[in-house]
Amino acid sequence: MAFVLIGFMGAGKSTAARELAAAMDAECLDSDELLAERFGHPVAREFELHGEESFRAAEEELVCGLLARAPERAVIALGGGSVLSGRVREALRGHLTVLLDIEPALAWERVRAEPGGPQRPLASDPDAFRRLHAERVELYESLADAIVPVPGACSPALLARALISLSLAPRGTRLLWAGSASGQYPVLIGRGLLAAGVTEAVWPLDRTVSRAFWVTDEHVAALHAEKLGDPALRITIPPGEESKTLAQAERVWRALASGGVTRADHLAALGGGVVGDLAGFCAATYQRGVPVVQLPTTLLAQVDSAYGGKTGVDLPEAKNYVGAYHQPAGVIVDPDVLETLPRGELDAGWVEVLKTALIAGGALWEAVAEGARADERTIFDCARTKLAAVAGDERDAGRRQVLNLGHTVGHAIETVTGYARYRHGEAVGLGLLATLRLSGQDQLRAQVGALLAAHGLPVRLEDADVDAVLEAIRRDKKRIGADVPFVLLQAPGEVSYGCTVPGEELRAAVMELAA
Amino acid sequence: MAFVLIGFMGAGKSTAARELAAAMDAECLDSDELLAERFGHPVAREFELHGEESFRAAEEELVCGLLARAPERAVIALGGGSVLSGRVREALRGHLTVLLDIEPALAWERVRAEPGGPQRPLASDPDAFRRLHAERVELYESLADAIVPVPGACSPALLARALISLSLAPRGTRLLWAGSASGQYPVLIGRGLLAAGVTEAVWPLDRTVSRAFWVTDEHVAALHAEKLGDPALRITIPPGEESKTLAQAERVWRALASGGVTRADHLAALGGGVVGDLAGFCAATYQRGVPVVQLPTTLLAQVDSAYGGKTGVDLPEAKNYVGAYHQPAGVIVDPDVLETLPRGELDAGWVEVLKTALIAGGALWEAVAEGARADERTIFDCARTKLAAVAGDERDAGRRQVLNLGHTVGHAIETVTGYARYRHGEAVGLGLLATLRLSGQDQLRAQVGALLAAHGLPVRLEDADVDAVLEAIRRDKKRIGADVPFVLLQAPGEVSYGCTVPGEELRAAVMELAA
Repeated sequence: MAFVLIGFMGAGKSTAARELAAAMDAECLDSDELLAERFGHPVAREFELHGEESFRAAEEELVCGLLARAPERAVIALGGGSVLSGRVREALRGHLTVLLDIEPALAWERVRAEPGGPQRPLASDPDAFRRLHAERVELYESLADAIVPVPGACSPALLARALISLSLAPRGTRLLWAGSASGQYPVLIGRGLLAAGVTEAVWPLDRTVSRAFWVTDEHVAALHAEKLGDPALRITIPPGEESKTLAQAERVWRALASGGVTRADHLAALGGGVVGDLAGFCAATYQRGVPVVQLPTTLLAQVDSAYGGKTGVDLPEAKNYVGAYHQPAGVIVDPDVLETLPRGELDAGWVEVLKTALIAGGALWEAVAEGARADERTIFDCARTKLAAVAGDERDAGRRQVLNLGHTVGHAIETVTGYARYRHGEAVGLGLLATLRLSGQDQLRAQVGALLAAHGLPVRLEDADVDAVLEAIRRDKKRIGADVPFVLLQAPGEVSYGCTVPGEELRAAVMELAA
Repeated sequence: MAFVLIGFMGAGKSTAARELAAAMDAECLDSDELLAERFGHPVAREFELHGEESFRAAEEELVCGLLARAPERAVIALGGGSVLSGRVREALRGHLTVLLDIEPALAWERVRAEPGGPQRPLASDPDAFRRLHAERVELYESLADAIVPVPGACSPALLARALISLSLAPRGTRLLWAGSASGQYPVLIGRGLLAAGVTEAVWPLDRTVSRAFWVTDEHVAALHAEKLGDPALRITIPPGEESKTLAQAERVWRALASGGVTRADHLAALGGGVVGDLAGFCAATYQRGVPVVQLPTTLLAQVDSAYGGKTGVDLPEAKNYVGAYHQPAGVIVDPDVLETLPRGELDAGWVEVLKTALIAGGALWEAVAEGARADERTIFDCARTKLAAVAGDERDAGRRQVLNLGHTVGHAIETVTGYARYRHGEAVGLGLLATLRLSGQDQLRAQVGALLAAHGLPVRLEDADVDAVLEAIRRDKKRIGADVPFVLLQAPGEVSYGCTVPGEELRAAVMELAA
């Protein structure tokens, strides 16, 4: 099995392949380079001399040969168009395919900046270039076992380790690379990852030098005890939002101190959003920071809260008021564990899928609108959307704010109802409806309402005072001075953040929920 | 009054002056440029034609004229050698002098890399270059109202704001620029900075858009109440190390939440190390981070703990076990407030001066060894040493570790004696003695012992079991796996970190303390 790098021109496949091969101490092969050798002149010249068709035939032959006879763990860079061949796609099976994913605008810039001007036959004008990218991107994605965004602060050594993990994971597992200013980490998503023997094999840190100290809750511990290893290295908290407190954080910190956990060790958070946020915060602050591996077991955590490094606990005064940004060292997601989730929990978690699909638009929104199940494919797409929003804006100063779609009203509803009447997802569902009203999206609001109802989720606000909800919104922690910035939506995939909403419109949107 | 940039060649005075002038919307003047205009050829050519003496005379005349007629708030870059003239130094009085401080090796690299090769007459060989730097550096420092390290991620807008603060501060106040991976901030050190009217004038943040929420202790509040402004924006904790707890942190967090503090607001920590560490940690984690201005009122905090962004609280199991790195938005240091400190507190704080002098070597060590008072000069030099150690290694992975000199044994002594028998400084003093023994520095150990004794500080360990101290060292949070890394000292100014110490030597060094 080889690691095969695919992607659009300008993504940097040749360079990445060399670095990755060096990090793995493996052989590096580059199809364009080998073709140029065979032709006796550069690939661009071959295009000129004999045209694309002739080039593609030669490329197909060479690449199929390469893939058939690839040394074990070789790193192979393929020309951007080679996967247009069905024979090449066939030959990719059995190898591990890594997509270097680049925005067309950036790819164009890079290609134009190549020394000696662009040598690429298919990079003559920007519009054709963009069209070509749009044509190919779905094909690339459908072939990719791993998606690595470009540019990213991607350490070849870390990526090499993650790809080897992926090669040891159950078939169908996919890898996403997460990047942000403060850290990069692998996300593995696949059925069966959370099983004794498997989890250890794909672990992102070296457990022979860094002990894993588990944090979980009583429900999860009962379901997955056998996967957790040594019970001496385990802290179990009571299940539920009531545990997201400073008191539980203190229990964790003190247990870590008593257990002699050092900066060389790390935490492993196995559970839903509460466990992930609490363990993440404890990891962020224990001895001023130790790594944490997130192993989310609820739908909400698998599609949303396990990624992006927001950690924290609640105060009696307000939710998530004490916390830190602390990117995980890795996230391991096994959709199979969702089978043990109660129906209501799954439906409430599905609201974050709905929210993410509204933000992403495109194929994810279409699938969700048509009633797609929250399976590994959906989870992967949601995680990818979230990581893209976090990548350039870890600390929520800009683009990341789109992820708050529906959350400002949702949080206020939770606050006013004492976190008891509605699950988080249910409150966010109501928040989405209010947001779509504020966005002037009547039709989409009706569609989302129907989707919520189909999942047995509330579409009307009950047992809550409208004025109290409005007051809670005014106290939102995103508030800057007097204004609470809102996220609005023009269409699925078109989201604006930092919007000011007139007080009377907000009141009307909340009153409509309660009507 | 103008802002005058001085410093060695290669420090980037011309560029910095232009950027700073742009940020201040002020006029920019460059003595070398003006001289070249006057000569009708570059400065280097003038050297060749008429020699250095003739050049210096022309430079002196031009610079004195510039300084005498400088427009208000102009930014003026001076040639590196211009301050050799007594008349120029005289003319600098009444202006604000900013030293761009650069290591000679880096300056040499930069000068060599100048387009067209080095144009500088005094940059012909590296040894002469280094000697020239050594000759001038003391002169530069003695003239500087502000010291800005080069290279630093120095934002011209932030520096401009800080220099304007400095221009409003009492005479004698000096500015240090602190840089690190996660942030940069000004440090103002001067007598009388902590006084109603003055503190507000030099504040590093805009208090018209960001409210200051004060955290202080009861002692400090009683002494400085009138300087604290609106009591509604104040949280007072009981004095002493016993307040460095999660319980007090929770009080602060909840008061911030009840007080409606938002991310646009900030904290102000007025007090010693406990207040600074606690308020810093609360700021780091309240709503995942708000700025904090540190206003240290003890010697320990003024020379050490207020800088560098280490924040945290104690657990019952161990000191400083819960915390975060969070650089302040600024530090305001008024040595006058030390006059209200009890003698014992001042002496214990002086141990950090001693430690810093041992790390720094040079003039600071000589002054401390000769019994220098902990005045604004000493505090400034200590702060500078600390900030230099933090600059390249905010998170303690390398060079910053030198600041732990004496602290591993010191912390263990505090732990074993329940933080009651010895003040922090007293324990660190004992730790320094043990460290000097481990470093094989018999003579220096005797000298340090005499200095400690002269300050009425303990030089013998009492009421503590040697085995318990050794066990506490083994549990140090700096421990990586089984080894606790030690900081050792070859001579004042020559410090090694990450050293392994044989168990029997450590035992002997601690036993010697207890003998």
